[in-house]
Amino acid sequence: MQRYFISEDLWNLNDNKVLISGEDFHHIVNVMRKNPGSQFICCHPSEQSYLVEITEINNDEHVIHCLVIEQLDENRELPVYVTLAQGLPKGDKLDLVVQKATELGVREFVPLKMDRSIVKWDDKKAKKKLQRLEKIAKEASEQSHRQAIPTITNVETIHSLLKRETFDKILIASEYEAKGENQGTESFSELLKEIDDNDRILVIIGPEGGISEGELQYSLSNQAVPIRLGPRILRTETAPLYVLSILSFYLEEWR
Amino acid sequence: MQRYFISEDLWNLNDNKVLISGEDFHHIVNVMRKNPGSQFICCHPSEQSYLVEITEINNDEHVIHCLVIEQLDENRELPVYVTLAQGLPKGDKLDLVVQKATELGVREFVPLKMDRSIVKWDDKKAKKKLQRLEKIAKEASEQSHRQAIPTITNVETIHSLLKRETFDKILIASEYEAKGENQGTESFSELLKEIDDNDRILVIIGPEGGISEGELQYSLSNQAVPIRLGPRILRTETAPLYVLSILSFYLEEWR
Repeated sequence: MQRYFISEDLWNLNDNKVLISGEDFHHIVNVMRKNPGSQFICCHPSEQSYLVEITEINNDEHVIHCLVIEQLDENRELPVYVTLAQGLPKGDKLDLVVQKATELGVREFVPLKMDRSIVKWDDKKAKKKLQRLEKIAKEASEQSHRQAIPTITNVETIHSLLKRETFDKILIASEYEAKGENQGTESFSELLKEIDDNDRILVIIGPEGGISEGELQYSLSNQAVPIRLGPRILRTETAPLYVLSILSFYLEEWR
Repeated sequence: MQRYFISEDLWNLNDNKVLISGEDFHHIVNVMRKNPGSQFICCHPSEQSYLVEITEINNDEHVIHCLVIEQLDENRELPVYVTLAQGLPKGDKLDLVVQKATELGVREFVPLKMDRSIVKWDDKKAKKKLQRLEKIAKEASEQSHRQAIPTITNVETIHSLLKRETFDKILIASEYEAKGENQGTESFSELLKEIDDNDRILVIIGPEGGISEGELQYSLSNQAVPIRLGPRILRTETAPLYVLSILSFYLEEWR
């Protein structure tokens, strides 16, 4: 069933009402061609979702009035808060990463300016890029039936990011590991077993050229654990999907 | 280090020699600008890889003569043979799936004509598409440092595919499962534990519209096990990457 993320000011839960406006209005009326009586799901910023029914479509004011039919008992969010910090890659690979990482449950996405990132984002470009990524994250959240939309932050560096000190676990996908120079490592599987519900997990992925020695050492001296993602070399946009798939499977399907 | 997959007729292992021609010649000479003395890796169709060194570049005959320096002890292939059968999706999503599935270790890729596939491949289109997918698989194998290139088969249906009877395990990513209508299932994690080395594993993924009831029932009555890929709805091109990541992690990093 179609779902929409509705901002807090449009809800009146005391009276079981919610208003829909803007792009969602357009989508429901013009794309989905819904009428009064149609039902769909609306998600509140509290991450609670509701089955709602259209009571009135006001074409003059571009507003849809809906009645809340039922509070839903959904459980679609990863039990941990994953921040994905992705070294700025070339081309439009970030679009793909944000879409797929959203499907796989990421909570926050940080575009990371790294030593070996070739792409430069000036302020004007960054603003447009971030708006685009936010739109992709919202649409992917709707499509994958999530209860929350991941946050997209401004561009950061590994130094500013690790200053946050709010992470319980920090994983860094290191090329040194992937190439098998440290084959005995069981760091990712060991680390998985130590994850608790509600942990804040930071996943750092390098750009095409990998993570520089300076960034790796800085990360390792700030509690980051290097992890190996199988014996093959994954592209920068494939690595985060591997990590998120493992987190989902281990925490949601295996334990 | 750069690697090339060289067909059997170009090897003379008794004399520690290998010839390189065609597109690989062009890549080594014109793109990488290599000279006699340069070293790289050549993979034999037996999946054995060798460190080789250029002894002579013959520009008239478009052939590079190489000396085999060392047989390499690589172990980059999944310990199981995974066939990925992907319901024909819209647009160029198959390109993405083949590239990423190759990075993640798939052995065989089957484009699957399914009840809800909107795309039609006529014979002429199929030939061009398959050539394109083969090229993507070869390049992704080189880039991810594999020892084997996955095979791309002709378009099949679920009926022709399941007639093969050569699979030890058959997994079907069922939307019924993803939507949580069978929440108690532990089929994927249970199934993982039963996998033996060298097993032939078939993974069936539906197109955008999902697997039809008829296809699902036919698969289930032919030993397919429905698996759940977390509680969110994954797009058709994301689902195979999830499954392959789990197989890689469980078989290569966890056990």
